[in-house]
Amino acid sequence: MVARGEEQAMRAAVAASEQVRGTTSPNPPVGCVILGTGGEVVGVGSTRPPGGPHAEVVALRAAGERARGGTAVVTLEPCSHTGRTPPCTDALIAAGVARVVHAASDPNPLASGGAERLRAAGVEVVSGLLADEVAAGPLRAWLHFARTGRPHVTWKYAATLDGRSAAADGTSKWISSAESRADVHRLRARADAIIAGTGTVRADDPHLTARAADGTLLERQPLRVVIGDSEIPASAKVLDDAAETVQLPGGDPRAALAALAERGIVDVLLEGGPRLAGAFVQAGCVDRVLAYVAPALLGAGPAALGEAGVGSISQAWRLQIEETTMSGPDVRISAVPQES
Amino acid sequence: MVARGEEQAMRAAVAASEQVRGTTSPNPPVGCVILGTGGEVVGVGSTRPPGGPHAEVVALRAAGERARGGTAVVTLEPCSHTGRTPPCTDALIAAGVARVVHAASDPNPLASGGAERLRAAGVEVVSGLLADEVAAGPLRAWLHFARTGRPHVTWKYAATLDGRSAAADGTSKWISSAESRADVHRLRARADAIIAGTGTVRADDPHLTARAADGTLLERQPLRVVIGDSEIPASAKVLDDAAETVQLPGGDPRAALAALAERGIVDVLLEGGPRLAGAFVQAGCVDRVLAYVAPALLGAGPAALGEAGVGSISQAWRLQIEETTMSGPDVRISAVPQES
Ligand SMILES: NC(=O)c1ccc[n+]([C@@H]2O[C@H](COP(=O)([O-])OP(=O)(O)OC[C@H]3O[C@@H](n4cnc5c(N)ncnc54)[C@H](OP(=O)(O)O)[C@@H]3O)[C@@H](O)[C@H]2O)c1
Ligand SMILES: NC(=O)c1ccc[n+]([C@@H]2O[C@H](COP(=O)([O-])OP(=O)(O)OC[C@H]3O[C@@H](n4cnc5c(N)ncnc54)[C@H](OP(=O)(O)O)[C@@H]3O)[C@@H](O)[C@H]2O)c1
Repeated sequence: MVARGEEQAMRAAVAASEQVRGTTSPNPPVGCVILGTGGEVVGVGSTRPPGGPHAEVVALRAAGERARGGTAVVTLEPCSHTGRTPPCTDALIAAGVARVVHAASDPNPLASGGAERLRAAGVEVVSGLLADEVAAGPLRAWLHFARTGRPHVTWKYAATLDGRSAAADGTSKWISSAESRADVHRLRARADAIIAGTGTVRADDPHLTARAADGTLLERQPLRVVIGDSEIPASAKVLDDAAETVQLPGGDPRAALAALAERGIVDVLLEGGPRLAGAFVQAGCVDRVLAYVAPALLGAGPAALGEAGVGSISQAWRLQIEETTMSGPDVRISAVPQES
Repeated sequence: MVARGEEQAMRAAVAASEQVRGTTSPNPPVGCVILGTGGEVVGVGSTRPPGGPHAEVVALRAAGERARGGTAVVTLEPCSHTGRTPPCTDALIAAGVARVVHAASDPNPLASGGAERLRAAGVEVVSGLLADEVAAGPLRAWLHFARTGRPHVTWKYAATLDGRSAAADGTSKWISSAESRADVHRLRARADAIIAGTGTVRADDPHLTARAADGTLLERQPLRVVIGDSEIPASAKVLDDAAETVQLPGGDPRAALAALAERGIVDVLLEGGPRLAGAFVQAGCVDRVLAYVAPALLGAGPAALGEAGVGSISQAWRLQIEETTMSGPDVRISAVPQES
């Protein structure tokens, strides 16, 4: 049974975790709210950057003595293993917390068992509050990474209603609206890395940074990743010092993602172009498709997705629509691979 | 001032008009509800097929003497001219109706003046109730026709999220879902004519009829129109006797639409293929785009729209999204040309 106030606290924990998305990998962006014995909020915390304390510890510090006998509401099952920091379960037990309510369970065999350990210490544990929301939202990439060992890849692209990502002469500025471009900068700011192919870097010379509406660089920048074997011009914007950039060899997308996982990259935004996106789709390495569909018709020009190993309609990569929203004048469609 | 009950009556009039869409051209599909002196519904009517009575007359006949002193609620301003039938204004006046509430005004210079004529006879007239809804819904095609003299064209197509309307080998059955296909049959049943190019007829051999879910032909069939100069095989399904078929010469879409207007065609569904659709878009002859976007990726294969005279992004045909809904697993996007 979830007490009144705990769902609200979980929403606050989710909001706290959203704040730190993009800053915690390879650790999960977790949010935690501590409720006192009267159900009042006595501490809020979220995961600090790697090496720093986890959300539970940050929230417990804020709560101090008021945590004793209270409830910890946390977006992920507290960890029970010693990594760079001591286990959160022990901190919760030491603080005298009487009850823990968490959303997602930890699929990580090393960290899991948190709920058990808490129960063994006499702490009441409730699992699964808002679990679906958290699993589809702030913890999505990390849960995917914990389950598969592969970073979560969101392929985003912009195209017209008739499926063109540029006009016949190659011009594409701006296919999508100012609102959609701003949305992409928000996505970038939350990602650990942005990937583009050498073709796109040569053709468009993109900066691949997260910027505010006025063009200024945001404080935190994702790693810029260029994939492909050919050299990119030394003058390429992606090589400036606004953010770190790595070039990885082309070929197997899984190899590139494994190299990024080695670096602690969990959440990846794939920005194209069509050939690289086709290779990722074909390799089964696209976990979410985010399409910004602009209300325009071109009748000619390249598509957003190139060769993906599909010859016949029966071989199509089937997705399911997760959400359709308006992004200014554009339609933003989020889709995920169909569960088979 | 619109009385309580009149808006409800207008919704009933809209529903009545929806029933006869596709059966009234070149006349508008109008709905009419007569309210008695106590505000109770005493008659409902909708436009009969050409040569038959208009909605007002049908509703007045149903109401009989109970119309006297009552209110006529009608989706279009009553006509005041004698065509194949006498003016509706005169029928309303003769029936002793005290008040007329209508949605859209009649843009037709011959028929308009209905409101004036009613007022001159001492009938109270209120204009514009649910006018936007009616103008975007049941009377959309007819209002367009009345204003421009050109049939209203809805270009509908199915494509994958990456903008392909068939796979690399040409296969396309079924890109869109059963729900979307059923939706298209409903659209066909309401249209006056369905257009396809000779290319599509040769490639797909479509039947271009309106059918129920079990495949049986609906009672009313739109005119089947094939556009292009080349001969289509005598065995083509489109030439069977399930519905009437005409072939029109290719070239200027405006000429084809003018020929259809001559035949009393007001509401047209353009089903492709890409070349013909491109020609219609380029000629400014697409008034609404209806895209069924299937949640699938192909990475290769033809786009739904061919050459439309756009070389550079600045020349794109700009639309605005009217509505986005789910059609089973597909996203259905309705868009109209941007008002400039
Ligand atoms: N609308 C949008 O959302 C959008 C987004 C991005 C780009 N674009 C457009 O896309 C165009 C560039 O297209 P593109 O296809 O040449 O660009 P691309 O996909 O960015 O780059 C292609 C290159 O990626 C490398 N690569 C690495 N692994 C690969 C693999 N497994 N398979 C194939 N290639 C692999 C190869 O480079 P090496 O030869 O160096 O090995 C290949 O030549 C530009 O015109 C740009 O405007 C559009
Ligand atoms: N996904 C979808 O929604 C959808 C819908 C329909 C078709 N398709 C696909 O489209 C493919 C056929 O493509 P298509 O482009 O050849 O077919 P199309 O557009 O149906 O037919 C092209 C023909 O239309 C005639 N035409 C008439 N006026 C024209 C004009 N102003 N400009 C150009 N052509 C004009 C020409 O025929 P003449 O040479 O006879 O003069 C031309 O060859 C098929 O594979 C079919 O599966 C897809």
